Amino acid sequence: MSDIYQQAVEFHRKNQGKLGVVPTVSVKTKEDLSLVYTPGVAQVCREVAKNPEESFNLTLRGRSVAVISDGSAVLGLGNIGAVAAMPVMEGKALLFKQFGGVDAVPIVVDLHTADELVNFVKAIAPSFGGINLEDIAAPICFEVEDRLQDLGIPVVHDDQHGTAMVVTAALINAAKVVGKNFEDLTVVISGAGAAGLAIAQMLLSLDRVHGKLVEVAGRRVKEVIILDSKGVITKEGGGLKAEFVSLTNQSGRVGGLAEAIVGADAFIGVSKGGIMTEEMVSSMAPDAIVLGMANPEPEILPELAKAAGAAVVGTGRSDYPNQVNNSLIFPGLFKGLLSARIPRETVAIRQAASAALASLVEPTADKILPSMFDPGVAEAIAKAVVETAKT
Amino acid sequence: MSDIYQQAVEFHRKNQGKLGVVPTVSVKTKEDLSLVYTPGVAQVCREVAKNPEESFNLTLRGRSVAVISDGSAVLGLGNIGAVAAMPVMEGKALLFKQFGGVDAVPIVVDLHTADELVNFVKAIAPSFGGINLEDIAAPICFEVEDRLQDLGIPVVHDDQHGTAMVVTAALINAAKVVGKNFEDLTVVISGAGAAGLAIAQMLLSLDRVHGKLVEVAGRRVKEVIILDSKGVITKEGGGLKAEFVSLTNQSGRVGGLAEAIVGADAFIGVSKGGIMTEEMVSSMAPDAIVLGMANPEPEILPELAKAAGAAVVGTGRSDYPNQVNNSLIFPGLFKGLLSARIPRETVAIRQAASAALASLVEPTADKILPSMFDPGVAEAIAKAVVETAKT
Repeated sequence: MSDIYQQAVEFHRKNQGKLGVVPTVSVKTKEDLSLVYTPGVAQVCREVAKNPEESFNLTLRGRSVAVISDGSAVLGLGNIGAVAAMPVMEGKALLFKQFGGVDAVPIVVDLHTADELVNFVKAIAPSFGGINLEDIAAPICFEVEDRLQDLGIPVVHDDQHGTAMVVTAALINAAKVVGKNFEDLTVVISGAGAAGLAIAQMLLSLDRVHGKLVEVAGRRVKEVIILDSKGVITKEGGGLKAEFVSLTNQSGRVGGLAEAIVGADAFIGVSKGGIMTEEMVSSMAPDAIVLGMANPEPEILPELAKAAGAAVVGTGRSDYPNQVNNSLIFPGLFKGLLSARIPRETVAIRQAASAALASLVEPTADKILPSMFDPGVAEAIAKAVVETAKT
Repeated sequence: MSDIYQQAVEFHRKNQGKLGVVPTVSVKTKEDLSLVYTPGVAQVCREVAKNPEESFNLTLRGRSVAVISDGSAVLGLGNIGAVAAMPVMEGKALLFKQFGGVDAVPIVVDLHTADELVNFVKAIAPSFGGINLEDIAAPICFEVEDRLQDLGIPVVHDDQHGTAMVVTAALINAAKVVGKNFEDLTVVISGAGAAGLAIAQMLLSLDRVHGKLVEVAGRRVKEVIILDSKGVITKEGGGLKAEFVSLTNQSGRVGGLAEAIVGADAFIGVSKGGIMTEEMVSSMAPDAIVLGMANPEPEILPELAKAAGAAVVGTGRSDYPNQVNNSLIFPGLFKGLLSARIPRETVAIRQAASAALASLVEPTADKILPSMFDPGVAEAIAKAVVETAKT
């Protein structure tokens, strides 16, 4: 690991990052210049002033996304601040283009409250066709995203919904592999932060309207049990987490992971490395699905989970089979949202994206998801997004 | 003109704008991905967290500029709002790359007060190596720029200082052509907005510190007379304009342009098309210099100014000789500021940039400035900027 770390620093230093801004048209003469700049550009401004919707057709806005972070919850590094978050945002913007053809601009902001973040995004919104919120800590991330849903362009907190979409796709295919119905699954989620709650929301087909959870049409699993670091969640502390209490854990489990996991069909870890034991895996229902996605060390190492009887095992890592990584989703998701000028992401869109991703492989225990290098992933997801938005 | 307007709209629609965001490194395998994204990127974040200055070396920040506008004073179009300003900002960003190799991101913001703009720029500053403020109306533009000078990265309102630098270069060379000393010139400036006041500031070698004007070392002309739409400026109304009253018009002229222009060596128009008559040009000192840069119609058409006896005539237009256009300055200026990681633009830097631009041609009456398509313009300006910052 230290090798890759050193290599990465050298690589970034040599290239001074990894993203550039370039003309997409040729400007070689005064005549070219008079088209892209004065005097011709004045008329383009007038057209947009007359009809702001034209900004999506006459400028890069129709192709562009801002990847915005305050650096408060970056990877496994925590609250490292705005400037230190840039390498991740620049990387994410690179993946947007590489895999989805989307022009993404990484923006890190020195802001600290929900109000400040909301006002910032509102101010900058006229510049972009969509907003990807990234690595913003809970619970601020929920409030910020909720308050920006009427902005007129899609605002998606990828740590929540990107993760939820790819996990749902993984679970759809893992269930297929073990011969269980998705709708019959009992799923234990370890981690009640941005990712954990969004996964629960998606597995239960819930929408969030002004911070309240509302059931909407769509596939849902039988039961979800959510744990935070203290055990099965309770109403204590309030906030979005408390909203989930009455919608989860119908079987009334109490205690920690050892108690909650007994008899469960699937484990989804978005919490902390090493918290799951082989005994816990053994106590699950037969043909257990274990997706331990803590980074860099998963909740349980795949070899241990397999030895303890798990039938399908995934992690967030690229050096094991079944990498559950939201890079599989966000390029295609925004490609679709932008191409059809969809003003808002919805639960139906998420479910369609997730189903489209799952459909790209004939799943086996060691391949429940495509690789992000497989051709056509973003295109398939984009197509599903566009078709769903039409209906 | 209607043809070029229609062509420009079609061109922008066909290309959906004119700027793209692209990877500058190749990512083809999982191994590549582990360098630019997880897990390798984590170490890059840690290095920046440890030493924020590393953000200029390890991310695109060291190569990038934000072109930020609120759309309150766009070209000759006025206050058309944020979204309608994007075609100009996108064009400007294109020129940044095309002529200076600078990665510029166009950002239009729906903000309306100096406080809001200052806070926005402060919040976004960790993302960029420099800030180009653009097309922000006076007097807010002065306050916003002044309050951002200690940000740690250069913040330049190009409508002010880019214009002032290129006008100064034009005047240096025009004086050479007519055989007058720059230091002996009496200059009448028509227009007391962002450009007019910044030109006066530069021609008098003044710095602005917390909104107050301070004389600093450097070349200055003999006398400047500034007019607004009411005539020679007075202290009425206060603000930055009033600050100039005691530093200009030592000869005590009163009245409008007809009165102020008598015997002047140079006219600089950043005001309104058609306001200057042939009689006014005739009343100037022999070998008069007339730079009428109102767009699209200059203060006086070149053929009329020449007929009335002007020796050197320039405009803002590309279809006449001597186009005075700040595109000659900003790519090289920021190229230099970024390459030497200069935290603040200064009067000395402006004067060096201006002198470097002037030095690129052996001036004649019909060529007082290089064309922006001439090779080496940005490089020469950047070099002068870097050398000045070192001293």
